[in-house]
Amino acid sequence: MSFFSDLENTSIRNNSLLCVGLDPDIAQMPDIGILNFNKAIIEATSDLVCCYKLNFAFYEAAGAEGWQILHDTLREIPGDIPAIADAKRADIGNTAKAYARAIFDGLGFSAATVNPYLGYDSLEPFINSPARGIFVLCRTSNPGSADFQELQVQFECELMPLYQAVAAKTSRWNRLGNLGLVVGATYPDELKTIRRRYPDVTLLIPGVGAQGADLEKAVRGSINDKGAGIIINASRQVLYASVGQDFAQAARQSAMKLRDEINRYRNL
Amino acid sequence: MSFFSDLENTSIRNNSLLCVGLDPDIAQMPDIGILNFNKAIIEATSDLVCCYKLNFAFYEAAGAEGWQILHDTLREIPGDIPAIADAKRADIGNTAKAYARAIFDGLGFSAATVNPYLGYDSLEPFINSPARGIFVLCRTSNPGSADFQELQVQFECELMPLYQAVAAKTSRWNRLGNLGLVVGATYPDELKTIRRRYPDVTLLIPGVGAQGADLEKAVRGSINDKGAGIIINASRQVLYASVGQDFAQAARQSAMKLRDEINRYRNL
Repeated sequence: MSFFSDLENTSIRNNSLLCVGLDPDIAQMPDIGILNFNKAIIEATSDLVCCYKLNFAFYEAAGAEGWQILHDTLREIPGDIPAIADAKRADIGNTAKAYARAIFDGLGFSAATVNPYLGYDSLEPFINSPARGIFVLCRTSNPGSADFQELQVQFECELMPLYQAVAAKTSRWNRLGNLGLVVGATYPDELKTIRRRYPDVTLLIPGVGAQGADLEKAVRGSINDKGAGIIINASRQVLYASVGQDFAQAARQSAMKLRDEINRYRNL
Repeated sequence: MSFFSDLENTSIRNNSLLCVGLDPDIAQMPDIGILNFNKAIIEATSDLVCCYKLNFAFYEAAGAEGWQILHDTLREIPGDIPAIADAKRADIGNTAKAYARAIFDGLGFSAATVNPYLGYDSLEPFINSPARGIFVLCRTSNPGSADFQELQVQFECELMPLYQAVAAKTSRWNRLGNLGLVVGATYPDELKTIRRRYPDVTLLIPGVGAQGADLEKAVRGSINDKGAGIIINASRQVLYASVGQDFAQAARQSAMKLRDEINRYRNL
């Protein structure tokens, strides 16, 4: 099986384009340990999502134990639900190979986010994994993304923002059909542009919830003509819907509300 | 103490601009375990270097155990020799904080490499650590770095390659004097340009040895007018100088040769 077919199957079964970001912040979660917290969130939401995404920063903050929890959390996710390693890695060829090995073989993720700044050979060990989904950072959801991603660049006789040059290159590198793009919901116009130019690309879309993006705008501007092709990620909004004993139930309610709201804008 | 003062002190004491990259590749090293290998390399080279650099990919490839070895290796480095976390991290503000915490507080590194693609707020938690050295990827040593870093961008009414816009922004962000740049020895002309434009910036320079750069060109083009301001990294050339029982002694010979060769080009 491959990431994209698992994603499609899960998305259809759960009627969902929602990805829950398992980004445990010990300052915000109940004091039950990260693995138990993740288990409870997964149990409460696994019939409501199309995939999960784990941001490595929150695990690395817990050191070697955190890395083990990353590994163990993956085993708690039902095998037919794909999981994205949100690690934003990139390094020179020799080293990128070690990163890809760590994420795909060592931990067992079926997808990963990567940073394009170092160019093709830094992504090659990821790109060359046909069964994995590779999401290239394009227009990220944060305010600072404008610093470089919005700079006008000369790309093959055309003037365009850097993030569009990244999308153009990614589209060309997508010989195996396993590449997607990360575009923040916080930039709905850019989302629309990318969708118009690349009708078939799968978009991983963070930025709703705590980051304040308009969900309706984001979904309507990015959904493809089959009412799919997007993964809407929510982390804090779901994980910390309640900080009390009822956190898992509150996470379920929040995830269900989000899933249903996304579906309203899909025009199915 | 801060990274840059530790770096200067060590550099003077060891009369060295050489950084040894502790990037253990189990396929290339003797079968004695990563930590023992690192210990032997550190013991054999600690009077020949200005700092060490640990590329996280090689440790993450060994999973949770690898993360522990990263931690333990740092404890084997004499306290007055600084160590750079070559992790090339970057993420949105909230998450970048967790990465900075993992590297500086959790592991105890005094410097780190970061990727600029996500812009200012993704680097802020790193930049705001005055005692730490932050090296922003500018022109990386790999062939693919041309894909985006060489694109001509419009940056404040001037047309320049993206890597120069990154250098310009970094220079402006360097309010605390703790920012440096990563520029590959494989691009000696770009090294020269950066040095001419930024006479005071510290350059972390990978790409000699296995990557085939011309050491003399790289040093002569990048050294500042005090005969310093650069860190020349070598990994494979030192670590795998011999694959036999004499690997540590061979690493010492290789490091000494490199240090002395760099010094010949410093015009001291």
